[in-house]
Amino acid sequence: MTLTGELLIGAAEVAATAGTMKALDPATGELLEPEFAFGGAAEVDRALRLADEAFDSYSHTGLAQRAAFLDLIADKLEAAKDELAARLALETGLPAVQFEGEAVRSAGVFRKFATVVRQGRFLQAAVDTAQPDRQPTPRLDHRLQKVALGPVVIFGASNFPISYSVAGGDTASALAAGCTVVVKAHNAHPGASEIEGRIIRQAVAEAGLHEGVFSLLRGAGNEIGEALVDHPLVRAVTFTGSEGGGMALYRRAQRRPDPIPVFTEMTSVNPTFVLPAALAARGAEIGAGLVQRAMYNVGQACLKPAILLAVDGPGYRDLRDAAAAEVEKVDARTMLTPGIHDAYTRNAQRLEDEGATRVAAGAAPARAWDGQSLLYEVTGERLLAEPALREEVFGPAVLLVRLSSSEQLTEAARAFRGQLSATLHADAADRGAAAELLPILERRTGRIVFNAFSIPQEVSYASTHGGPFPATSDSRFTSVGMGAIERFVRPVTYQNFPDELLPEPLREANPLQVWRLVDGELTRS
Amino acid sequence: MTLTGELLIGAAEVAATAGTMKALDPATGELLEPEFAFGGAAEVDRALRLADEAFDSYSHTGLAQRAAFLDLIADKLEAAKDELAARLALETGLPAVQFEGEAVRSAGVFRKFATVVRQGRFLQAAVDTAQPDRQPTPRLDHRLQKVALGPVVIFGASNFPISYSVAGGDTASALAAGCTVVVKAHNAHPGASEIEGRIIRQAVAEAGLHEGVFSLLRGAGNEIGEALVDHPLVRAVTFTGSEGGGMALYRRAQRRPDPIPVFTEMTSVNPTFVLPAALAARGAEIGAGLVQRAMYNVGQACLKPAILLAVDGPGYRDLRDAAAAEVEKVDARTMLTPGIHDAYTRNAQRLEDEGATRVAAGAAPARAWDGQSLLYEVTGERLLAEPALREEVFGPAVLLVRLSSSEQLTEAARAFRGQLSATLHADAADRGAAAELLPILERRTGRIVFNAFSIPQEVSYASTHGGPFPATSDSRFTSVGMGAIERFVRPVTYQNFPDELLPEPLREANPLQVWRLVDGELTRS
Repeated sequence: MTLTGELLIGAAEVAATAGTMKALDPATGELLEPEFAFGGAAEVDRALRLADEAFDSYSHTGLAQRAAFLDLIADKLEAAKDELAARLALETGLPAVQFEGEAVRSAGVFRKFATVVRQGRFLQAAVDTAQPDRQPTPRLDHRLQKVALGPVVIFGASNFPISYSVAGGDTASALAAGCTVVVKAHNAHPGASEIEGRIIRQAVAEAGLHEGVFSLLRGAGNEIGEALVDHPLVRAVTFTGSEGGGMALYRRAQRRPDPIPVFTEMTSVNPTFVLPAALAARGAEIGAGLVQRAMYNVGQACLKPAILLAVDGPGYRDLRDAAAAEVEKVDARTMLTPGIHDAYTRNAQRLEDEGATRVAAGAAPARAWDGQSLLYEVTGERLLAEPALREEVFGPAVLLVRLSSSEQLTEAARAFRGQLSATLHADAADRGAAAELLPILERRTGRIVFNAFSIPQEVSYASTHGGPFPATSDSRFTSVGMGAIERFVRPVTYQNFPDELLPEPLREANPLQVWRLVDGELTRS
Repeated sequence: MTLTGELLIGAAEVAATAGTMKALDPATGELLEPEFAFGGAAEVDRALRLADEAFDSYSHTGLAQRAAFLDLIADKLEAAKDELAARLALETGLPAVQFEGEAVRSAGVFRKFATVVRQGRFLQAAVDTAQPDRQPTPRLDHRLQKVALGPVVIFGASNFPISYSVAGGDTASALAAGCTVVVKAHNAHPGASEIEGRIIRQAVAEAGLHEGVFSLLRGAGNEIGEALVDHPLVRAVTFTGSEGGGMALYRRAQRRPDPIPVFTEMTSVNPTFVLPAALAARGAEIGAGLVQRAMYNVGQACLKPAILLAVDGPGYRDLRDAAAAEVEKVDARTMLTPGIHDAYTRNAQRLEDEGATRVAAGAAPARAWDGQSLLYEVTGERLLAEPALREEVFGPAVLLVRLSSSEQLTEAARAFRGQLSATLHADAADRGAAAELLPILERRTGRIVFNAFSIPQEVSYASTHGGPFPATSDSRFTSVGMGAIERFVRPVTYQNFPDELLPEPLREANPLQVWRLVDGELTRS
């Protein structure tokens, strides 16, 4: 595939109107060809008008047709995995093999959403049959299904340039819901974004869908983001990234004359609590295992277990020593962007300024934007006194917290803001303490992991990638897993309808055999 | 039950700290005993601390215990129906019999939510079993259920002083979800609010629950509302009322350091479209039927069909004449509050100022706050030119729109903002036109009614009482029907858990026999 650097607005390729950029190879500091176009408010308007034009037909595609379209994207994504991986190795400085795997996994997500669409459970179809003789008033026939919200804007993330980017779970779940999509590409990987965008666009054309089903934009600074969340035709927004960036978009969207749902996935330190019996029995194993997971993707992962808490006692020193030894093994590796590298250096220094001690370090940086792996330690007292110590350091740093008592561990658990995940390591003798800790963690996180590590992320029915603020802007939703589709649908009730005017899933004969709640009972007949 | 006028904060009765008020009998203009206490920020803080304290235990009640608690409220509400109705007849000037029915219906809503809790489908339990041998990475066991958000603040409405007030569907669905509740009573019916509040509080005590599960506050002006949405322990807010009031609370909550979900149900004109064959065949029947429904509760209903649209042609004059005759039959009746009466008079005048013609009027007002029933007519051209004509007039007014063509009807359908409902009257010969209109209505409303009128509101599985902005602040939810519980829950995933530490609905043996999605298949085993 030849990269042209143009914006993809429906079927059109649109040249720059607001400057251009080149991608940076963070491993060499060199700029990569070609030049990529930036657009502005005019391109936003053009893409959203097309998305709105396409919405009525796309949102009313039959379930089988929509599922086939998602499968087609999956096939094309998988077929392009080598090309994508090669470009991403250049754009990120990370090994190509990682991205081959990410492309295959992301193709799998599109296929899973195709299944979700075919099965039609996401419609949450319900039928309350007429009761003409009911006293004191008769009941009319009521039938409900979920329908798509409208055009959706997706802001791709920097750190997983396929699965949380143009051809990632946000796009898959929005398209599955029946929404049309405008993606704002992340400028950290414009080439991969273009490849992914062209794949989806090609699938739109081959499936015979309206060109406005998908567009890919790119822009400099905040201007294009603001134009996107301000546009009157947008019906929902998703964002994965920093708390600052996410909240700026969130608050802006809430100031619209007509506020719209914005789901932002922002920040999490994914605290890991090690209870005493587990600590004594396998402190070293936990310390080493956690560091291995934390260093995945140079620590640039939303599920990185960034803070490890244990009460000082038998096994604590083993845990610390093993974690330190593991950190010391890690080579310095290129971070995703110079900006992310600079923030990492600054935020790691912040830990020291706030009283954390550097316990171990990986190999020293060899190149300009290499991130050095670091292990810090701090007392429970300091952690409780200083909120900044409980905040994310995006990159390969882990903070070990030495607590003085189990009461302090409970207090620390209560002190965290909302999280994507929390992990508990507990042996049989810890079960009582674990049971007491669970309700505290449940209130603060979207996922609780027991005696394991929280990555890799599963994409399935029981997955939650969400949590109380500031992990996300709305804890009622998830951005990963089959539930992600719920962000993009709303209920509509059809009352007293003639059968032939009803949407297919609600017709009396249930021709699609979707699960429906009929007079309160689940049935497929 | 003796009314004391105190605030009900948990088990405590709290005297006024911010002034007092008396209820007004709008039929006589007289003030009713006793004095009702106003509270301020200190009482808000006290109620929310209690609600937060109660949350961990209440949100972890077993499903059977929680359902029994809801049934207990239902029994007490039904037992108090005469007392409630007598007080409400005084506080509203409306007939007592209406409120007996409302009390019975609201008791039924609590019972329906008890069933929802017992069945446990709202938990949306999902199990993805472990796949230790999966390549390239094994899968850990993942189990998901929905959990309650936390303490919820509910702002009661003025117009349905039981079912949308203290003991209404918002409270029932929040308690069913496992949330603790603080209600801010509407000052239009403080006595009924106290009766309802005491009923719920008594049920909390008899069920042996933490006193903080429920509190009832009252306050003057905006101050208490602002303190409620600002309080750091509140996790969600619901509101039913005007667009101005709802959006003030919504926007304030979105400016919090940690934004919280606010569901506001605000304004809707519930447009009714009459297609040509239906108009010719039964124009008079539709005109008369619509006016009868519109005048229910002196036009003070969110589902009032306020705007009736038809293309001028055969049957149009019959429709208008029948609507006019029906309006002329209606006695002037007391409106809920002097403020609502004054706004009605002002807004009805606005229709005339914008070019609508008064076609008919009901009996002239006999008392100060009587609302006179009114029928206006306006051209399609004016309706399209003047957005104010498409806005709600809360009270007994109906606007008939005389359209010049079917194209203008389509254009008018597109011009409306988001609605709770829209209605289509269409005969067999209208089916083609109806099919074209449906996608337009679907995008703009939470409910479409075919050849019927949209009230009374059903409270069931297929009910939607929601819709795009400004009908509500978030079209993905409903405030009426079993789906209302979804506003108050969020997913949590339990990963790799030992069975005995899992929440009961997720245990391997499924002891509660709830429906679960196990490896993608729905099952109760």
